[in-house]
Amino acid sequence: MTHDITVIEKGSVVSPIGFLAGATYAGLKTYGEDRLDLGILTTEYSQSQVHDTRAQVTAAGMFTTNLVRSPSVTLSQSNIANGAARAIIANSGCANCCVGQQGLSDAREMADLAGGKIGIDAKEVLVCSTGIIGVELPMALIRSGIPNVKLSRDGGHEFARSILTTDTKTKELAVSFTIGGVQVRIGGCAKGAGMVHPNMATMLCFLTTDAAVSPDVLETALNHAVDRSFNMISIDHDTSTNDSVLILANGAAGGSDIQAGTEESRLFEQALESVCISLAKMVVIDGEGATKLIEATVKGAKSIEDARAAARAVTSSNLVKSAVYGNDPNWGRMLMAAGQSGAYLEESKISLYINDVCIVDNGLPIPYFKEAVVANMDRPEVRLLIDLNLGDISATAWGCDLSEEYVTINSAYTT
Amino acid sequence: MTHDITVIEKGSVVSPIGFLAGATYAGLKTYGEDRLDLGILTTEYSQSQVHDTRAQVTAAGMFTTNLVRSPSVTLSQSNIANGAARAIIANSGCANCCVGQQGLSDAREMADLAGGKIGIDAKEVLVCSTGIIGVELPMALIRSGIPNVKLSRDGGHEFARSILTTDTKTKELAVSFTIGGVQVRIGGCAKGAGMVHPNMATMLCFLTTDAAVSPDVLETALNHAVDRSFNMISIDHDTSTNDSVLILANGAAGGSDIQAGTEESRLFEQALESVCISLAKMVVIDGEGATKLIEATVKGAKSIEDARAAARAVTSSNLVKSAVYGNDPNWGRMLMAAGQSGAYLEESKISLYINDVCIVDNGLPIPYFKEAVVANMDRPEVRLLIDLNLGDISATAWGCDLSEEYVTINSAYTT
Repeated sequence: MTHDITVIEKGSVVSPIGFLAGATYAGLKTYGEDRLDLGILTTEYSQSQVHDTRAQVTAAGMFTTNLVRSPSVTLSQSNIANGAARAIIANSGCANCCVGQQGLSDAREMADLAGGKIGIDAKEVLVCSTGIIGVELPMALIRSGIPNVKLSRDGGHEFARSILTTDTKTKELAVSFTIGGVQVRIGGCAKGAGMVHPNMATMLCFLTTDAAVSPDVLETALNHAVDRSFNMISIDHDTSTNDSVLILANGAAGGSDIQAGTEESRLFEQALESVCISLAKMVVIDGEGATKLIEATVKGAKSIEDARAAARAVTSSNLVKSAVYGNDPNWGRMLMAAGQSGAYLEESKISLYINDVCIVDNGLPIPYFKEAVVANMDRPEVRLLIDLNLGDISATAWGCDLSEEYVTINSAYTT
Repeated sequence: MTHDITVIEKGSVVSPIGFLAGATYAGLKTYGEDRLDLGILTTEYSQSQVHDTRAQVTAAGMFTTNLVRSPSVTLSQSNIANGAARAIIANSGCANCCVGQQGLSDAREMADLAGGKIGIDAKEVLVCSTGIIGVELPMALIRSGIPNVKLSRDGGHEFARSILTTDTKTKELAVSFTIGGVQVRIGGCAKGAGMVHPNMATMLCFLTTDAAVSPDVLETALNHAVDRSFNMISIDHDTSTNDSVLILANGAAGGSDIQAGTEESRLFEQALESVCISLAKMVVIDGEGATKLIEATVKGAKSIEDARAAARAVTSSNLVKSAVYGNDPNWGRMLMAAGQSGAYLEESKISLYINDVCIVDNGLPIPYFKEAVVANMDRPEVRLLIDLNLGDISATAWGCDLSEEYVTINSAYTT
């Protein structure tokens, strides 16, 4: 993060002005010690200092590309299509996926109930579900749970806990920075793609800001940030049925709407990107069985597509991931992964560095001090740099190593 | 296999008439108990009963699509471009990859030496290497090893052993069948993508036939067979730098050349496909850490591309592979994998079967007898069938499960 962007201590999704959150245990999640499984996040619309020229709280979202998807995703996509939304209701324990038409009815009822509780239209509510695929939402538990959610200005941490499944910790962050003389904030929380239990697979991220942002600027900034953060991480090469990243902007900090193409929009994009990258890295390092974060940067590419494809391929390869787990500077696997990525490259021009130590220069291995590199890989973050030496475009991807524990977790059904 | 195609007992690449093979231990492979690491396969050209209207032994090959590739692959592609070749020299222990220009010189010298030994032009020799990436071929060992290779009519099993790296067993097969009243044979051997040692990654397959086949028919048949066999298997989602599948056809069985578009060419295609599928399944079941073969068939697809993409995605997913390892009928992960494959599908139409038991019908889970399905998954081959119910195209893919052993093998550098 640059010096212009300050991390807020113990920040959360309610760090931006005018947001409320809360959570309860409705009884959906049958595992985990610290159970909360139903959360609501909203803006204090009626009392807010929302910029009075704008009646709406703007919103933007990005969703899974999997053709098998939860009706909760379908409903949220529909409700956010107009660039506006005021609340999110999320449950963990059940993904509301592969349950036919009932899933859409249940998602609608969740939006209805949350809207009624807050006093807004159901169409202004987004719904997210994560957990087991193929069982219907226990709506009786959700109906009786919603009244127990206490919305408050310090409910952010509880909300962050309520969306977890097999995650071992919450992922939260908030930052503040100044735009056009006005101090604004961005807050966020996320959950990872933990899958200890059968049929569980979801990455969720909820973002809030009190900056005044028009829908188009918000959508552009979210796309920009997600392409450089959540779309650049991989735990196990599998795309969930429920992935969603949502942002609500209530303008409560005051000031004029950020306009497209301005220095202000560039600064907002940059801040949102930094928040998303931090949360994405938290998701990866808490990946199932993960012991290390792998950061792979590809530079010198001819296009951003090439740079991203090669960087993602390196962090997604089972062979690279296993090698990093074993502190093995196995550069051949890294070149193999880049070579099969679809990115254009020329073997004779590639240089490769592990934790800043050059291992391959212009396609040829150099006599590096192997013992030192092995010792250096035995730490929580391993950095790989591949220079294609063809252009000036770069991209960074993040992944985790692959340990025996990953397999144990994901094959544990019968034990 | 149909009743027309008979498996030859203890068959090998020299089961077809007129082929010779042999192998030696040159000293390249530093592991494995039963060491052979340099093999040669050729046709007895001068003494053969080759159909006298055709001066050439026809040949076809398919090679890795990885942009980082061994100069051995480059040389073989060049030498086979005219649809002819008479011999193959292969070494294990060293992949001759990522070694710059020296790699091409070494591959050429191997072709020269093998050609000289056999008495044919170096341009008629194909070269394959498998083993460690990033170290040069120890040519002194290869030079002194080649004279020790004794070519014989029963050297097929030795040749099959000489191409292994971390494989635990040889993969060999030969079949016979009748085309136009002439009995012909196809033989083959393969090695898998074992990677116990760092930087090792290659799938090789060598095929021979004494049928008389013109270059274009041979190439078409090989493409057809590989698309349905080796291109439908996955051990770890990683494409090696050295993958090659080669076939030599010497016409020694007699009879006229098989012509394109005839019943004979269809029969040859079918026989070659069955040999390739059998060898491909042997490769998968000997995958690193594998305990089970996973066979995934996708039917009811709108296109062959959709059917293949969905079937491959299911057998390639770490989550599906881990679930199968644990006897977990985790159908949600299977639908997730198909849904992210890029294949067109409609969730509400999908049916899914595990070992013939219907688990999902028209997108909805049915109350199946879970304990029986779990018990039934505890065997060496697990069959998955996904019916998209959209068209009439189907495809089958094969993979192996993912065990803790895979990670242990591939992270074992420092231990």
